[in-house]
Amino acid sequence: MAGRLDGQTVVVTSADRYMGPAIADLFAAEGAQVTRDTGKRYAQDEVEALLDPVPDILVANLAEPPLAAPVDEIADGDWQNLFEALVHPLMRLVRAAAGPMKTRGHGKIVAVTSAAPLRGIPHASAYCAARGAQNAFLRATGLELAKYGVQVNAIAQNYVRNDTYYPDDMLEQERFRAHLAAVVPGKRVAESQETAHLALYLASKECTHMVGQIVPLAGGWTTTTG
Amino acid sequence: MAGRLDGQTVVVTSADRYMGPAIADLFAAEGAQVTRDTGKRYAQDEVEALLDPVPDILVANLAEPPLAAPVDEIADGDWQNLFEALVHPLMRLVRAAAGPMKTRGHGKIVAVTSAAPLRGIPHASAYCAARGAQNAFLRATGLELAKYGVQVNAIAQNYVRNDTYYPDDMLEQERFRAHLAAVVPGKRVAESQETAHLALYLASKECTHMVGQIVPLAGGWTTTTG
Amino acid sequence: MAGRLDGQTVVVTSADRYMGPAIADLFAAEGAQVTRDTGKRYAQDEVEALLDPVPDILVANLAEPPLAAPVDEIADGDWQNLFEALVHPLMRLVRAAAGPMKTRGHGKIVAVTSAAPLRGIPHASAYCAARGAQNAFLRATGLELAKYGVQVNAIAQNYVRNDTYYPDDMLEQERFRAHLAAVVPGKRVAESQETAHLALYLASKECTHMVGQIVPLAGGWTTTTG
Amino acid sequence: MAGRLDGQTVVVTSADRYMGPAIADLFAAEGAQVTRDTGKRYAQDEVEALLDPVPDILVANLAEPPLAAPVDEIADGDWQNLFEALVHPLMRLVRAAAGPMKTRGHGKIVAVTSAAPLRGIPHASAYCAARGAQNAFLRATGLELAKYGVQVNAIAQNYVRNDTYYPDDMLEQERFRAHLAAVVPGKRVAESQETAHLALYLASKECTHMVGQIVPLAGGWTTTTG
Repeated sequence: MAGRLDGQTVVVTSADRYMGPAIADLFAAEGAQVTRDTGKRYAQDEVEALLDPVPDILVANLAEPPLAAPVDEIADGDWQNLFEALVHPLMRLVRAAAGPMKTRGHGKIVAVTSAAPLRGIPHASAYCAARGAQNAFLRATGLELAKYGVQVNAIAQNYVRNDTYYPDDMLEQERFRAHLAAVVPGKRVAESQETAHLALYLASKECTHMVGQIVPLAGGWTTTTG
Repeated sequence: MAGRLDGQTVVVTSADRYMGPAIADLFAAEGAQVTRDTGKRYAQDEVEALLDPVPDILVANLAEPPLAAPVDEIADGDWQNLFEALVHPLMRLVRAAAGPMKTRGHGKIVAVTSAAPLRGIPHASAYCAARGAQNAFLRATGLELAKYGVQVNAIAQNYVRNDTYYPDDMLEQERFRAHLAAVVPGKRVAESQETAHLALYLASKECTHMVGQIVPLAGGWTTTTG
Repeated sequence: MAGRLDGQTVVVTSADRYMGPAIADLFAAEGAQVTRDTGKRYAQDEVEALLDPVPDILVANLAEPPLAAPVDEIADGDWQNLFEALVHPLMRLVRAAAGPMKTRGHGKIVAVTSAAPLRGIPHASAYCAARGAQNAFLRATGLELAKYGVQVNAIAQNYVRNDTYYPDDMLEQERFRAHLAAVVPGKRVAESQETAHLALYLASKECTHMVGQIVPLAGGWTTTTG
Repeated sequence: MAGRLDGQTVVVTSADRYMGPAIADLFAAEGAQVTRDTGKRYAQDEVEALLDPVPDILVANLAEPPLAAPVDEIADGDWQNLFEALVHPLMRLVRAAAGPMKTRGHGKIVAVTSAAPLRGIPHASAYCAARGAQNAFLRATGLELAKYGVQVNAIAQNYVRNDTYYPDDMLEQERFRAHLAAVVPGKRVAESQETAHLALYLASKECTHMVGQIVPLAGGWTTTTG
């Protein structure tokens, strides 16, 4: 049976965490040749080694706990940590992939970011700043690369099950369930496969006209792009 | 071979125009039982007949030429016409489908609207108003129905080939090509199948966590929800 | 003492309701010559009489209770009523003012709409549709008229005291106070003068570069434009 | 004559560049006691010295040329430079001001950022990332601090005259004028006083209900918040 990604080469970053496992599994099941890289900070030399050659599809999946704090108590180390885990590696990954993809005349970058900056979350302003930098970078990059046939888009998710932000034990807590009922119109957390299927749509050959877009996937917690 | 919509019943409105043919064809190819209705204004009795029984998936596809004019020259008839073609039938369709879908605990409504109101187009303020009413109605409805397992989303497209707004002969005009190069980052008009594939994603069982969302599909002409 | 609107002629519609009284009072205190019109539906002949001559500043203030209902129970009369009270009169007012303002090379239209469609409110989908039509119409019109020196903007408010939506007795109810604490970051309803001061900013000569904008004013309930 | 900021203490950062001079001049003319600080990077010790005591109003004005480059040619130094000039100092300034303002139960932070990330600009993805981080940080912070009576908002401007991005000699170039006519509905660059007046509105006692908001001021180039 034909898979939707037959013959496509894919690199998934941080493939052992956040949305990495679900996306890598689905893409492999759809016929892609998936490289599951388990790096985290993606220094320049790691990026160059990983993206040689640049694959057809790059899944830029990066995660770091939100390090919640009131704004007046943000620790310098936490702030830097979020930018080093989320923002700078994303730039290095996209920068390295963009050139060869432009030359080739095609290529897909699907990033998994967050819906947090689209609505704003008190006590998570550092996290919102870092995720907001990612989203803005991807929008600009997507608009820039569109004319070369290279597509960049992001999944801005919230309330999706994953080890970093919504681990299994949190989902069973009474307090979390009450929170969910109060603020998420869908009243539930989605399974991680949900993100994988949106990533599959974005990575498929059938999607060419969506570029530079930050797609919220959040059960209605937010439906706007900012 | 298993289709992605096997066993699903689907009603496509205005199935002979705008994005109707592409969506109906793809959904049928994916195993759905598709009713291709060729109505336009969807008076209450038409709606009741069409949605008896309410299908698993309703594709609310409505179109009307934009009736371009400077705001000081909007004709009353044109204004009314746009609301009667785009806004009021959408309400009647969603209103009729919502109750049975709520009772059943599932159901999908995918509307094809427009990206025009998300960015705003001079000399198309009447059209933007009508499409803006659609988008706002669908966002509110989607948030309302999410807790019942009923999903409402919209494809807010622009620069996609279709008989109503981007017919074949327009796409060949030199003036149009220059316009495209100037304002669309992707520098091209997408084929109608592109919309059908996004509709398929939204209508599939793999998509449950996106609700009340207005998804731009416009080659980067706009990437924001308003 | 010099007022900020000295010598400006202003028409305020529905001046006895919604944000009309607060805006008319402040604009008069700032030296404007204010015509307080107490119409509601603004049929074409009323509009022509009212806007002869077209003033320097038109405050398009229109209101109608939200007529809350689940989407499957929207009454046809309520739906029509919202469009007749909010959408069609706004078009007639802006249409009549735009021509003379274009000819003159200046003019200000400040509309008071709602933040409801920017975020979406369950059981208020009809209201969201009508207010969404207003906002989309004003965005398109604002972009169209900018090059003529004519400015159109809207205040998209929520949680501001006024007779139509947040009357005094509602604000004292225990249930409403709990709602406010749960969903509005500012934890309070603003006084109606707040809207008047934003309208004054938009109407002043010091504001020329903001056009076609839907400005949320909602205590943080929403901070996005859709 | 009474000024609109009589008796208010104000700190303006980078007061000799970007929107600093225009804002400092207007705020002083409106009766504020203005401290014009001419720092740039705002290291922690500079911030502590500058904000002791924390003023009633902090104008967080930071600028750095956009360092334009295709995404595949971003220089590490340029990237870091933008974050060190725009993102990290903003965090340090807001962090230091937030605590005392919370304790006091009032305080205003008005930041001057950019509209660039709201729409996205090819060849300016690094700049968009840094300005996007600012905007997201300010939205989250504004929502967090609202309940303490502390207001945080941002002016997301574009096409406003200033020494850093739109210096006088650029505005006279034929090529720039053609660009302006093509992409800005208002067809012109605004004077720097325009930003100062929006800042004055946001900093005034009459504005309390707008929090965490990123207000576009861009002649219609963008009217959306993302």
